[in-house]
Amino acid sequence: MRIEIITTGDEVMQGVIVDSNTAWIADRCAQFGHQVIRHESVGDDLSAIGDVLRNAAKRADAVMVTGGLGPTADDLTVEAASKAFQVKLIKDEDVLQGISHFFQSVGHSTSSSNEKQALIPEGSEILKNKVGTAPGIKVKLNGCWFFFMPGVPKELYQIFDDSVMPWLSDKSDQVARERVLRCFGEAEASIDEKLQGLDLGDTRLSFRVMFPEILLKLVARSKSSADADRALEIAVERVREKLGETVYGEGYASLSEITGRLLRDNNATLAVAESCTGGLIASMITDIPGASEYFLCGCVTYSNKSKMELLGVGEETLKVYGAVSAETAMAMAKGVRVSNGASMGVSVTGIAGPGGGTAEKPVGTVYMALSTPDGISSYKYSFNRDRVWFKQFAAAKVVDLVRRSLLGLLPEGGGRDEN
Amino acid sequence: MRIEIITTGDEVMQGVIVDSNTAWIADRCAQFGHQVIRHESVGDDLSAIGDVLRNAAKRADAVMVTGGLGPTADDLTVEAASKAFQVKLIKDEDVLQGISHFFQSVGHSTSSSNEKQALIPEGSEILKNKVGTAPGIKVKLNGCWFFFMPGVPKELYQIFDDSVMPWLSDKSDQVARERVLRCFGEAEASIDEKLQGLDLGDTRLSFRVMFPEILLKLVARSKSSADADRALEIAVERVREKLGETVYGEGYASLSEITGRLLRDNNATLAVAESCTGGLIASMITDIPGASEYFLCGCVTYSNKSKMELLGVGEETLKVYGAVSAETAMAMAKGVRVSNGASMGVSVTGIAGPGGGTAEKPVGTVYMALSTPDGISSYKYSFNRDRVWFKQFAAAKVVDLVRRSLLGLLPEGGGRDEN
Repeated sequence: MRIEIITTGDEVMQGVIVDSNTAWIADRCAQFGHQVIRHESVGDDLSAIGDVLRNAAKRADAVMVTGGLGPTADDLTVEAASKAFQVKLIKDEDVLQGISHFFQSVGHSTSSSNEKQALIPEGSEILKNKVGTAPGIKVKLNGCWFFFMPGVPKELYQIFDDSVMPWLSDKSDQVARERVLRCFGEAEASIDEKLQGLDLGDTRLSFRVMFPEILLKLVARSKSSADADRALEIAVERVREKLGETVYGEGYASLSEITGRLLRDNNATLAVAESCTGGLIASMITDIPGASEYFLCGCVTYSNKSKMELLGVGEETLKVYGAVSAETAMAMAKGVRVSNGASMGVSVTGIAGPGGGTAEKPVGTVYMALSTPDGISSYKYSFNRDRVWFKQFAAAKVVDLVRRSLLGLLPEGGGRDEN
Repeated sequence: MRIEIITTGDEVMQGVIVDSNTAWIADRCAQFGHQVIRHESVGDDLSAIGDVLRNAAKRADAVMVTGGLGPTADDLTVEAASKAFQVKLIKDEDVLQGISHFFQSVGHSTSSSNEKQALIPEGSEILKNKVGTAPGIKVKLNGCWFFFMPGVPKELYQIFDDSVMPWLSDKSDQVARERVLRCFGEAEASIDEKLQGLDLGDTRLSFRVMFPEILLKLVARSKSSADADRALEIAVERVREKLGETVYGEGYASLSEITGRLLRDNNATLAVAESCTGGLIASMITDIPGASEYFLCGCVTYSNKSKMELLGVGEETLKVYGAVSAETAMAMAKGVRVSNGASMGVSVTGIAGPGGGTAEKPVGTVYMALSTPDGISSYKYSFNRDRVWFKQFAAAKVVDLVRRSLLGLLPEGGGRDEN
């Protein structure tokens, strides 16, 4: 099917908000092998909306329209459709009742402007809105299927997933299968380069950067689900072979979530000592519900005094090797583990910049260490980017160190000491 | 002027990437009082691109086009324009030389496909690209001004700011003045409601949510800069009057940055003890370059053991009042301040959820405390949302507590104790 996507609203038109709904819809249409041929946005202008609706109907088999279904005077989509295609509007009693129920449930009464939302083009099917007042509308106009949906993302997502996805699937002679590979440790450009020229058949590969993680989504389509599964399997294997350990997992669990599960499954407990990451490691770990089962304590020791007093780093160590050194990192990791009675201690110390670098230890220099009852290992890296990038990447690298340690996959090049 | 914005590219069309360039361009056009009337996106399809270019020229005075200027076979914008408007393409020697200089500077040689980027519609003006190979192109076709620019954001931004902004200003008979008000502590909907019906004249107000902060941008336009300044001043005063202390600052410095400056200006030092925010307060504070001048240490004490050992919270306090209590918060704030020799100690303890709530202390309950040599105060709030929202809002609330304390603006309702 040929599909167009139309967004209405002055806020989108004037750049007050970025329209992310369109990409969201386009991605779902493409998953079923439908061809998205055009996106258009217009402001809250009756004749402009009518114009884009009419023109889209000439080119497309189906048109997804968002926005302009609210109760206010600048919500014009339904009226524009009625004028553009000369179709009557009818008050839908079910919709009206739904709206007043919705308002009762949140302790308000329906205003007369909400009644406008119950005016529906003749011949429409109502697409139930479970999270707001504006119903979705499905209607065939001039031989083209129109889906009118609210612009509020959570309302759009619910209506689309409940009512439009099954229809898109129905209109497709293809079955879609998808898998998401989660990557960490390499830049998007480097991953892209490694995958250049890789034969993935008809399987569609897309990137989504959730820095510092990169998600690769693979979608295979075929007439039979067995063929789609097989094509997807082959494509995933090829990508995994090219990327090796950069792929750390599959699906929608983040690095912190996967690491948290491993800690729980191993009955391990964790304490963290951080300097240059400034609390971000602890924050990433405690983003996960239930983190208190395995996370005991984090120490954000910016001053030397706190490194000595909280973590027991020796004054000699700081004097001889400096606060940014393998020796200090190891003392921090061991100190935080032992004082908290944790089974694992990790640490990081480095120079986030923009100030503080020296010729010997330039901005971006970072040491990490991992302490367990079996020993301590330390790792040195250089991540020379801006401060916030540095903090995020270094923090994720420490979380990844915990993950790897629990899997027996410690990175190469670590200096190792007895504990 | 009436302006349209066109984006080309299969990745945008299929929803692989969200098109944020369009909103960026629209916002800039609107700043000068130009009317953005339509956005359109099409895939890498010669005839579809030609079609949208031709139609846009019929409606608009100027069209901003992004994408499709690269060296590969699916970069079709210039060819589409040439066909749509029957204009000759000419090899521009300056552009060709610029491209080979660019490649030399990054250690590559020019490939034949790059030569394609030197083919320019006859009569064009070149808009210099300082950060990539594809030049911007300005050309009048069928009476309409076209600006062709790369889709890579950093290239687009540079070309647009250097070459298109002065032109937009020139074509406007208006002067624009803008100010940004920074808000914290209220939801967008609540701010929106307070500002409903407020007479701001022709001054344009837009929201940008950088959760948990909300930025209000006010843009006033007038024929004279004195009038624009005056209109802006009046609008800002009216908004400030409605929002009171919710507006904590102006411009582009974040809550952490403003708080950091105040700490530095007061020769104050800070230590932080956090439980439910899991390190996020320390991380927010250390996002700011130079934070080591005033930030000494953060303790992320999830376990009771760490609350007792690192912060000196009494076992009795934890037993009698619980870990989530005003008494524990106050002991944490004082403990972290004294043990680090800081002039200010702040703390937070609460229930981030989804688990851990009780009838007496439901999920979302949170206690904060501030300790200085003059005394301790504590505050109780309830922020019942999802875990990540809770962490971000509560962390920012603690940073705001530090800011208010330094300004003598402590929030009302705090319990107060001698230190």
